[in-house]
Amino acid sequence: MGRASSIVSFSLTLLILFHGYTAQQWPNECQLDQLNALEPSQVIQSEGGRIEVWDHHAPQLRCSGFAFERFVIEPQGLYLPTFMNAGKLTFVVHGTGLMGRVVPGCPETFIESPVFGESQGQGQGQGQGFRDMHQKVEHLRCGDTIATPSGVAQWFYNNGNEPLILVAAADLANHENQLDRNLRPVLIAGNNPQGQEWLQGRQQQKQNNIFTGFAPEILAQAFKINVETAQQLQSHQDNRGNIVKVKGPFSVIRPPLRRGQGGQQPQEKANGLEETLCTMRCTENLDDPSDADVYTPSLGYINTVNSYNLPILRLLHLSALRGSIRNNAMVLPQWNVNANSALYVTNGRAHIQMVNDNGDRVFDQEVSNGQLLIVPQGFSVMKRATSEQFQWIEFKTNENAQVNSLAGRTSVMTGLPLEVITNGFQISPQEAKQVKFSTMETTLTHSSGPMSYGRPRV
Amino acid sequence: MGRASSIVSFSLTLLILFHGYTAQQWPNECQLDQLNALEPSQVIQSEGGRIEVWDHHAPQLRCSGFAFERFVIEPQGLYLPTFMNAGKLTFVVHGTGLMGRVVPGCPETFIESPVFGESQGQGQGQGQGFRDMHQKVEHLRCGDTIATPSGVAQWFYNNGNEPLILVAAADLANHENQLDRNLRPVLIAGNNPQGQEWLQGRQQQKQNNIFTGFAPEILAQAFKINVETAQQLQSHQDNRGNIVKVKGPFSVIRPPLRRGQGGQQPQEKANGLEETLCTMRCTENLDDPSDADVYTPSLGYINTVNSYNLPILRLLHLSALRGSIRNNAMVLPQWNVNANSALYVTNGRAHIQMVNDNGDRVFDQEVSNGQLLIVPQGFSVMKRATSEQFQWIEFKTNENAQVNSLAGRTSVMTGLPLEVITNGFQISPQEAKQVKFSTMETTLTHSSGPMSYGRPRV
Amino acid sequence: MGRASSIVSFSLTLLILFHGYTAQQWPNECQLDQLNALEPSQVIQSEGGRIEVWDHHAPQLRCSGFAFERFVIEPQGLYLPTFMNAGKLTFVVHGTGLMGRVVPGCPETFIESPVFGESQGQGQGQGQGFRDMHQKVEHLRCGDTIATPSGVAQWFYNNGNEPLILVAAADLANHENQLDRNLRPVLIAGNNPQGQEWLQGRQQQKQNNIFTGFAPEILAQAFKINVETAQQLQSHQDNRGNIVKVKGPFSVIRPPLRRGQGGQQPQEKANGLEETLCTMRCTENLDDPSDADVYTPSLGYINTVNSYNLPILRLLHLSALRGSIRNNAMVLPQWNVNANSALYVTNGRAHIQMVNDNGDRVFDQEVSNGQLLIVPQGFSVMKRATSEQFQWIEFKTNENAQVNSLAGRTSVMTGLPLEVITNGFQISPQEAKQVKFSTMETTLTHSSGPMSYGRPRV
Repeated sequence: MGRASSIVSFSLTLLILFHGYTAQQWPNECQLDQLNALEPSQVIQSEGGRIEVWDHHAPQLRCSGFAFERFVIEPQGLYLPTFMNAGKLTFVVHGTGLMGRVVPGCPETFIESPVFGESQGQGQGQGQGFRDMHQKVEHLRCGDTIATPSGVAQWFYNNGNEPLILVAAADLANHENQLDRNLRPVLIAGNNPQGQEWLQGRQQQKQNNIFTGFAPEILAQAFKINVETAQQLQSHQDNRGNIVKVKGPFSVIRPPLRRGQGGQQPQEKANGLEETLCTMRCTENLDDPSDADVYTPSLGYINTVNSYNLPILRLLHLSALRGSIRNNAMVLPQWNVNANSALYVTNGRAHIQMVNDNGDRVFDQEVSNGQLLIVPQGFSVMKRATSEQFQWIEFKTNENAQVNSLAGRTSVMTGLPLEVITNGFQISPQEAKQVKFSTMETTLTHSSGPMSYGRPRV
Repeated sequence: MGRASSIVSFSLTLLILFHGYTAQQWPNECQLDQLNALEPSQVIQSEGGRIEVWDHHAPQLRCSGFAFERFVIEPQGLYLPTFMNAGKLTFVVHGTGLMGRVVPGCPETFIESPVFGESQGQGQGQGQGFRDMHQKVEHLRCGDTIATPSGVAQWFYNNGNEPLILVAAADLANHENQLDRNLRPVLIAGNNPQGQEWLQGRQQQKQNNIFTGFAPEILAQAFKINVETAQQLQSHQDNRGNIVKVKGPFSVIRPPLRRGQGGQQPQEKANGLEETLCTMRCTENLDDPSDADVYTPSLGYINTVNSYNLPILRLLHLSALRGSIRNNAMVLPQWNVNANSALYVTNGRAHIQMVNDNGDRVFDQEVSNGQLLIVPQGFSVMKRATSEQFQWIEFKTNENAQVNSLAGRTSVMTGLPLEVITNGFQISPQEAKQVKFSTMETTLTHSSGPMSYGRPRV
Repeated sequence: MGRASSIVSFSLTLLILFHGYTAQQWPNECQLDQLNALEPSQVIQSEGGRIEVWDHHAPQLRCSGFAFERFVIEPQGLYLPTFMNAGKLTFVVHGTGLMGRVVPGCPETFIESPVFGESQGQGQGQGQGFRDMHQKVEHLRCGDTIATPSGVAQWFYNNGNEPLILVAAADLANHENQLDRNLRPVLIAGNNPQGQEWLQGRQQQKQNNIFTGFAPEILAQAFKINVETAQQLQSHQDNRGNIVKVKGPFSVIRPPLRRGQGGQQPQEKANGLEETLCTMRCTENLDDPSDADVYTPSLGYINTVNSYNLPILRLLHLSALRGSIRNNAMVLPQWNVNANSALYVTNGRAHIQMVNDNGDRVFDQEVSNGQLLIVPQGFSVMKRATSEQFQWIEFKTNENAQVNSLAGRTSVMTGLPLEVITNGFQISPQEAKQVKFSTMETTLTHSSGPMSYGRPRV
C-alpha cells in the first residue's frame, strides 16, 4: 500500500518536474521506420528578414543531434551579433553579403586608413579624427560554407540587391555543446519578440539581448558610459527583432572584393602557414566545379569540406558535402559510415529513396527546394535528379565523414569476392560479374527514363 | 484542474510515445548491487550456423555500453557481409576461417593470376578470360582479435572441419555510434527471418538486406543489370538467414597460409610503415604465449592488444586482454581504472569474486565456458582457476585500458607508505610490511587449496 | 483495451524500475531560469575531519556535469586512500599537508635512506633492517591545484596546526567516467558509516572499503598473510570513517619543504622533459601573483591552469581559474565559450549578477566564503568585490576553457564594427565609440560605489 502510494507520488513528481518535453535519449529514438522531408516549424519575423527554425525535437533531428535554421536577410538587412551553445556550419544558398565574427582574445586587425602621416583633428565622417578598428570582415557569396565554434559571436549583412539566404546546421550532440540538447542562440544585440517557441516554458516570453539582464549601473561601470547609454544597450523599446534594416550606407572596413566573371572566381586558398587561432580560416567555397572531388561533365559534381581542407572542423566535429547533378543523373546508393547527415535542397527536385537498417524503405519521395531530409548513420540512400538541375548541401556530424557505396567502382560489391556474391544472392557467376563490374563509375551514374515512386513501403 | 488533466495527458503521451524500453541513462543504472554471469537471450538460426545475441538492455550491459554476440559458423558456412553502427572487436574462440572486409574507397588488391602474358579468351573457370579482383582476405585462427570500425562490411567463411566460433563486443556508448544505444547490424546480403528481437516493435518483423528496400528498377539502373537480377539481389524467396552453406569449393583469392606446428606459428607483425588507411592492420593474435605481457610458466600468461600495438583501436576506443591460467592460479584483485570490461570465458572454469564501489560483494560464483560477465569501472575483481585450465577474453571500452591491482608488487598497497597502511587498517608495522611486501608477484599468483564460495552477500 | 492495460503496466514498470531519481538528460534540464548559491547537502563525519558533499542531482550541478565536495581535515587527520570513477581537480583552500597518489604500474621512487653501505640487521624503528619505499609524496599549501585521474587512489595528511581545507570538482559528464552520472568514491581503507546518501537505495547502508567485500581467505592468499590480518584489512569494527586521526608522528618519506617567507615561495616548475606517465606533474600552485595571467596591482589578479601548463589536464578535460580581487574591483561581464564552470568562494564576498541565454537575470546576489555557484556555458556573469578582498576558484569542464568578455579591450564589443553597434542598439556613432573604447582594461576594472541588488528578476 505504501509502495503503491509512493509509486503514485513519484509518478506525479516525475510528471510535474518534467511536464514538458520528452527525453532525448530513449533507447529506440533512432528506430526511424518512416522519414519525412521536413519544413521549418517556426518563423521568427524581424524588421530586416526572418529566421526559420526546424523543430529539433522531431524524432529525426533529435536522433541525429542536429538543429537546423534558415536565415532570409533582406537587402540592407543586418543579422545582429549572436552566438550559439554549439558549433555550426552555415551555407550561403543565395545572394551576397558581409560576415564578421569576434574570436575571444584576438586583435582588431581591420583598421581604418590612413594609418601613417595622418594629420590629427581632421574629421573623418565618424568623428574627430577617429578611426574605427574591428576584427576580420569577409565577403560572402553563394556556396560559401562557414564554420563557427560555440560561443563565438557572428553577424551577417546583406549588401546585395536580392535576399541573402543562409542555412545553418549545429550539432547539439557533440562536446562543443555542454548543455542539454537545445539550440540556444544568445543575442548580443536585438531581440526576439516572439520568444523561443522550441523551448518549453518560454513560448510566451520575449527573448532579450544579454545586456537586458544586467543592471544599467553595472553596464555603465563596465563600459565607462552613462546610465542612459547603458539603458539604450538593453533595447527595451526595440521591437525590430534580430535582423534589422540599415538606413544609409553600411561602412565597415573590408578588403576589395576580387571578382572575375560574375563573382564566380574562387577565393585564394590559404596555404596553411597562417593557421593560428586568430587567423584560422573558417570559410570554404563549395560551388566551384574546378575544385570538385567527383566530376563528370555530363552528370554533375560533388565537392566536400572536411578537417583536411578546413582544419577548424577538427574542433567542430562537422563536415559538409555539396552536390550538383543534372536531369536523370543518379547518386549511386550509399550509406554514412561514421556520421549522421542533414540534406538540404538548395535548387531543383530529386527522387530520393532511403532504406533503414532493417531493409525497409523508409523514404521514397520527391524532395524540392527548401526541404530538409535527415540521413541517419548506416541508412542507404539513392538520389536521382527529376528537374533540369538538382543541387543540395549535406551537413555531417563527423569532421571526416565517410560514405560507402553499394554500387559502382569503389563500392562494397566490387570489394567482395565473386564467391561471396554468388553464394549470398544465389546468382550465377555471370550475374555476379555484372553486379560487380557493369557500373564502372564512382558515385554518379546515368539514370534513364522516369521511374514510379510513391509512399514508403512498410 | 486544467493542470491535473494536462499532467495526465502528458503522462499518457509519455507512455504512448515510449511504450517500450526504458531509458538508458537513468542516474542509478550503474548501481549494480548484484551481477550475474550472462547467457545469450536470443538465438538466430541460419542455414550455415547461428548467431547468439546477449540482451544489451540488461542493466549490466546497458550500464557498460556493450553489445555482445557469439557467431557459430558451421564448416562451409559463410557469414554474409554485414556492417554495424558501432565499432567492434571480434575474437576467434575456435576453428579456422577466412575473413574479408570492404573498406570504403580502398582498391581491390587481391587479383587473380596470371596477371601478365595471359592470352585473352581462354576460359578460366569463372567465365570468358575473366579474372576476379577484390579487397584483402585474411586467414583466421584461434586467438585472432579483429577490429572493425562502424559502417565497414565484413564476412567470414569457415574453411575448416569444425565449427568456427567467434565472439564480438561492440561499444554502443562511444562516438563511433551516432545513433541510439541499440546494436543495428545492416545486412548487405542474406536476411534474418526471426527479426531483431532486441529492438522494440520489430520482434515480429523479418529483417531484410539493404537491397530489399530499394525499387528493383533503381537497382537495375545503379548496377546496370536487368530487373530480374536486381530482384534476385533482394532475396525475397531466400530463407537461409545470414549464415549460408556454400556448395562446392569456395574459391576466393587468398595468400597461402603460413603454418608451423599445428597452425600455432604467429603471423608476422606489421612494421608500422604500411599503416595507411587502406592497409591498416586490423588483426592481432592473442594466443601466442611468446608475445605475452605477463608470463609465469607455472601459472599462465596474459596478453593485451591496445592502440599501441594495433593503432586502429585509436578510432574504435576499444582494447582487449587475453588470459590463460592454470589450476589454482589466481589473478590478483584489481579494478578497471578508465574502462568497463566484458569478460567472456573461452575455456574451463574459474571462481570469480567481485566487489562494487560500496564495498559489497556483488558476484561470487563459478563461471564456465561460454558465459559473459561485465566488470564495471572501479569494481574490484579476483579470478581463480577451478579447472585444469581457465581461459578468457576481456574486451574493454578504452583504447588504453588500465588496471590497478590491490595486491602484488605493482599494487596500490605497495605504493602506499607504511604509515598510511598502519593507520588506515589499525594494524602493526609488522603486519603492514607483510601486506605490502609478502606477495612479490605481479598480476598472477599461486592459490592453494579449494575455497568455499556461494551466492553474493548483500 | 489491451493497449490501455499495456500502457498502464508499462507505466507501473517504469515507475517501479525507476522509483527514485529522475533522469539526468531531460531536454530542458539546462533551462536554468533561477540559480542559487549552493551549500553542501550532506556532511560525512569522521574521526579526523569531515567531508561535505553537494547534491549533484540539483539541476545546476546535474546540467553542468559537476560533482563537488569539500574536505575538512583536522590536524593529524589522514584522509585514507580513495579513488573515484571520474577525473577531478582538488584545490587547497586552507592549511598545509601531505598528499600521495598511487599510479598503477609506476615504481616506488621514495626510498628510505641510507641506501648504500648499510649494515643489515640494525633495527630502524620500523623493524629488522627494513626500509620502506612508496610512491611520490608531495607537500601541499594554499593554492595548490591537484589533478587526479579516475581510478587513481589518493590520500591526504594534515601535518599543520590548522584545518586542511580542500575543495574538489569532478566532471561526471566526460569520458573519464564510464558509469552513470553519480560520483562513486571507492575506499581502499576506512569506511563511511553514514552511507552514500546521494545514491538512491544506499542511504541506510554503511559504505565499506574494497577489502570488506572479498572473502578473508582470498585476501590471505592474495597478500600471503594470515586470515586474521586479512580480516583486519576489512575493518569491520572500525567506525572512524574515511578521515582518521594519526597517533604519534606520521613518518612517511618526503623531500624537505622548500620554504621562503611563510611558505609562499613557489615550487619550481617542471621543464616538461620528465613528463612521462609516472612522473607527470599533477600539481600547480595558483596563489602566486608572480605567475598571474591578468594582473593589475590596484585591482587584483587572475591565474589559470589548463592543458598548456599542466598537460595531464588533456586527459581529464578540466581546467581551473583562480581569481583574487580587491574591494570595488569588477570582473567585466563575460561568458564561458566552451565549458561549464563551478565557482567556489574561498575568501570574502562579492556581488554576482548572471544572465541566461534568454536575456533574463537568473542570479543577482552576494556570495560569500564557502558558497558554490554554477556558471553554465554561454551565461554572462559579472563579479564585483563587496569585501576588502574577494577570492575564488573556478573549475571548468574543458581542458582549454575560453571566456569571451562583453566589455573591455579584448571584448566582443571592441571586435565589432561601429556600424554594427550603432545599428544594433540604435545609438549614435559617438555613443558607440564610447561603448567600444572607453574601457581599455582587460577582464578587470574599477567599480565605484555601492550598487543595489536583490532577488533575480523573472
